[in-house]
Amino acid sequence: MEIIKGGICAVDGVMASGSRKGKYGVSIIVSKENTAAAVFTSNKIVAAPVILTKKAVKDGQISAIVANSGNANCFTGEEGLKDAEEMVITVAKSLNIKSEDIGVASTGIIGRKMPMDIIKQLINESIETLENSPEASFEAAEAIMTTDTYSKEISVQTVLNDGSTVKIGGITKGSGMIAPNMGTMLCFITTDVQASKNELDEALKKAVNKSFNMVVVDGDESTNDTVILLSNGKSGKIDENFQEALDFVCIELAKMMAKDGEGATKYMEVTVNGAVSQKDAQEAAKAIVGSSLVKTALFGADPNWGRVVAAVGYSGVMMDEKNVDIYFESDNESVNIVKKSSIMATENSIELEIAEEIMKKDEIKIIVDLNLGDYSATAFGCDLTCDYVRINSEYST
Amino acid sequence: MEIIKGGICAVDGVMASGSRKGKYGVSIIVSKENTAAAVFTSNKIVAAPVILTKKAVKDGQISAIVANSGNANCFTGEEGLKDAEEMVITVAKSLNIKSEDIGVASTGIIGRKMPMDIIKQLINESIETLENSPEASFEAAEAIMTTDTYSKEISVQTVLNDGSTVKIGGITKGSGMIAPNMGTMLCFITTDVQASKNELDEALKKAVNKSFNMVVVDGDESTNDTVILLSNGKSGKIDENFQEALDFVCIELAKMMAKDGEGATKYMEVTVNGAVSQKDAQEAAKAIVGSSLVKTALFGADPNWGRVVAAVGYSGVMMDEKNVDIYFESDNESVNIVKKSSIMATENSIELEIAEEIMKKDEIKIIVDLNLGDYSATAFGCDLTCDYVRINSEYST
Repeated sequence: MEIIKGGICAVDGVMASGSRKGKYGVSIIVSKENTAAAVFTSNKIVAAPVILTKKAVKDGQISAIVANSGNANCFTGEEGLKDAEEMVITVAKSLNIKSEDIGVASTGIIGRKMPMDIIKQLINESIETLENSPEASFEAAEAIMTTDTYSKEISVQTVLNDGSTVKIGGITKGSGMIAPNMGTMLCFITTDVQASKNELDEALKKAVNKSFNMVVVDGDESTNDTVILLSNGKSGKIDENFQEALDFVCIELAKMMAKDGEGATKYMEVTVNGAVSQKDAQEAAKAIVGSSLVKTALFGADPNWGRVVAAVGYSGVMMDEKNVDIYFESDNESVNIVKKSSIMATENSIELEIAEEIMKKDEIKIIVDLNLGDYSATAFGCDLTCDYVRINSEYST
Repeated sequence: MEIIKGGICAVDGVMASGSRKGKYGVSIIVSKENTAAAVFTSNKIVAAPVILTKKAVKDGQISAIVANSGNANCFTGEEGLKDAEEMVITVAKSLNIKSEDIGVASTGIIGRKMPMDIIKQLINESIETLENSPEASFEAAEAIMTTDTYSKEISVQTVLNDGSTVKIGGITKGSGMIAPNMGTMLCFITTDVQASKNELDEALKKAVNKSFNMVVVDGDESTNDTVILLSNGKSGKIDENFQEALDFVCIELAKMMAKDGEGATKYMEVTVNGAVSQKDAQEAAKAIVGSSLVKTALFGADPNWGRVVAAVGYSGVMMDEKNVDIYFESDNESVNIVKKSSIMATENSIELEIAEEIMKKDEIKIIVDLNLGDYSATAFGCDLTCDYVRINSEYST
C-alpha cells in the first residue's frame, strides 16, 4: 500500500468540486453507477439530510453526494426535509441523475432554517466546476469545513490478491461535536474496488469501528454524522488487502480530526493491550482518551498516570489491579511508568524525568497493558484547553 | 421536616472532631452500637480504605469512622492496606472499640505512600477533641476537604408515623473527581432512626441514587468514593417520612457539591419529565448535565437549546423527536423554549430574550419533557470553565 495524490479524485471517473460564500459552503461529488455503503450517527435526533440519505443508500446505489456547511438542517421539521429534498432535486436536474441516487449531508448550526437561496447558488456554482483533479478534491474538502482549522484528505493505492491495483480516496471534516451548535463528522470515501453492497457495508463498518468511532473530542455525538463509501467497481475484487487500505484511510482521517480538535494543542493516542475482549479494549481506550482529567493533564504536560488508571477502572472493563503496565511514548522515547502495578515513576526517578519530557511533546502515546487477554484497541484524542472552553462558550447567534 | 443545626452532631450521642496540618486532615466520628449502611465507588480500582470499610460494614456494625484528606491511599499495594489498618488500630486502641467496627476513608493524591507520622499525629489530636457539638461537626467537615472551597453539612428532623422525631445529619466533601489526582466524594451521615441493616441499606441506596449518583462534574469517577450511614436506633421506626428526609439530606449535600465544582461559576439543575422509565429519565438528565457543550454554553450564558436536544438524543433514551418540550428557568422566570419540538425562542422573539436573561443567572434550571411516560429525574451540575482546565492541568507534584 502506498499513499498517492488526488484525494477522492484519485479514483478514475470521480468528479468533485466545492464553493464557499461566507460561513456557508457546498461540496459535490459525482461518481455514476456506484455501489454505496454508509454509516450514520446513532444519535436519536437526526437531521433531515440524514433521513433522506438513509433512504437513498438503502438499495446500495449512490451516484452523487451534495453536502453543505454552515447549517445542519436539524430540528427543522417538515420544512427542513423539503429543503434537503430541494438540494437533491437541484443536483438531480442539472446532472441528469435520479433523485433517489443522490446522498445529501449538512453540518452547521442546529434549529435554524436553511438559507436556501445561498445554498442553491453554491450548488449551481459547484456543478459548473466539477472535475476529476487533486484540486477539485481539495476544494470539496475545503467547502465542508466548519470550525476545522485545515481541510482533511488522503488517498492510497494497494495491490489486491487478484493482481489489480485498487485506489481509495477520502475527505473529512470535523472532530466529534466541537463548536457552538456546529460540529458533525462528515466523511466521503471513493474507491474502484468491485464489491456487493453487503461486502462494502461490512468493510466500511469494520473500518469506522477502528477509526471514527475511536475518536473522542468531547464525548458529544452530533445529529448529522455521516460516512459514505462509493465504489465504481472498475478495479479488482474486494479482499483483505482492500480492508487494510480502507482501515488505513479511515484511521488517518480520524487522526487528522483528533489533531484538529477544538482548541487542542496536543494529540494523544491511547492503546490498550491485553484486554479479554475487543469491546473491553475499545471501552478502556475510549475512557482514557475521553477523561477530562487525562485531557487536562495532557494540556498541563503532567505525567499523571493515576488518572489513566482511574479511567480504566471506571470504564468497567475486566482488569486485575495487581497486573497493569503503563507506558508513555513520544516519537523517540518510551518509558514504563507502571510495571505489574508497581510504580516505576516515583519521585526523583529517571522514569519520572523521561515521562515529564515525553509529556512536553505535541504527540503523545499512552499504552496500557491489562495483561489478561489478547485484544487491543487504539483511541484518538486531544487535550482539553482553555481555548476549547472559550470557543464553545461563545454566543451562538 | 425542618432544617436544624448541628450537622452530624445533631443526633444525640454522636461525637466528632477534625484536625488539619498543611494539606492533610483527619476527621473522626464516633457513635457506638450503630447499625450501618454504606455505598462505595463502582470504579474497579478501589483504594485500600475502601477494601477495609467494605469488610467492616458487612455485618452492619460501625461504631467509628476515621477519614483523612491529602492522600487517597490508592494504588499503594500491600503497604497501603497496612497503613489503612494502622489508622483503624490507632483509633480502636484509643477509644476501646473493636477494629472490625471502624470504617476508614481517604481522599487525596493517588499512588503515593501515606505520610503515617502526620496522619497518626492528627488522629491522636482528633481523638482528644471529640465532642457532641455543632462546632465538632463543622471541624469534621472542614478536615476532610481537599480542593473544596467550603465545607458542606446539613441536618434535619422529621416526625415519623409512630409520632417520634428522628434526626439526620450529614457532612460531605468533593464533587466527583475534580482536582489533580485528588477528588473523591466522601459523605458521612448520622441518624437515630430504628432500622435493620437491610432497611438502612435500602434507604441509603434509594437516597444515593437520587442525589450523589446524579451529580456530574466531569464524568470521572473516583477510586475512593464512600457514603456511610450510621444509625444509633434511639428514635422511632424507619418509614417513608425518614426516607423523604434522608433523600432531602443527600440531595442538598449533592447540590452543595455541584455548586462547588472545580472552577464552576454557575450551578445547573436538569429535570427530565415524561420518560418511559426511571433509568431513561436519569440517563437523559445526566447526559445533559454532563455534556461539555451544554456546560460551556452555561459558562457563556448562551441559551443553546440545540445542545440540550442533541444530548438527549445521544443518551440513547426513548424519545419522540416531534414531541419534546424544553423550559429554561431561574428563581423568578420561566420560558418555554421548545414546545412539541417547535422552536419558540426564534430570533428576536420575547422567548429568546427571556432565555438570555435566565442564562445570565448563577443558578439555572433546564426542564425537558419527553411527553412519553410518567418518570422523572433530576441531575445536578455546573459549568465548564477555563478555571476548571487551569486547576486540573497544574502539575500534580
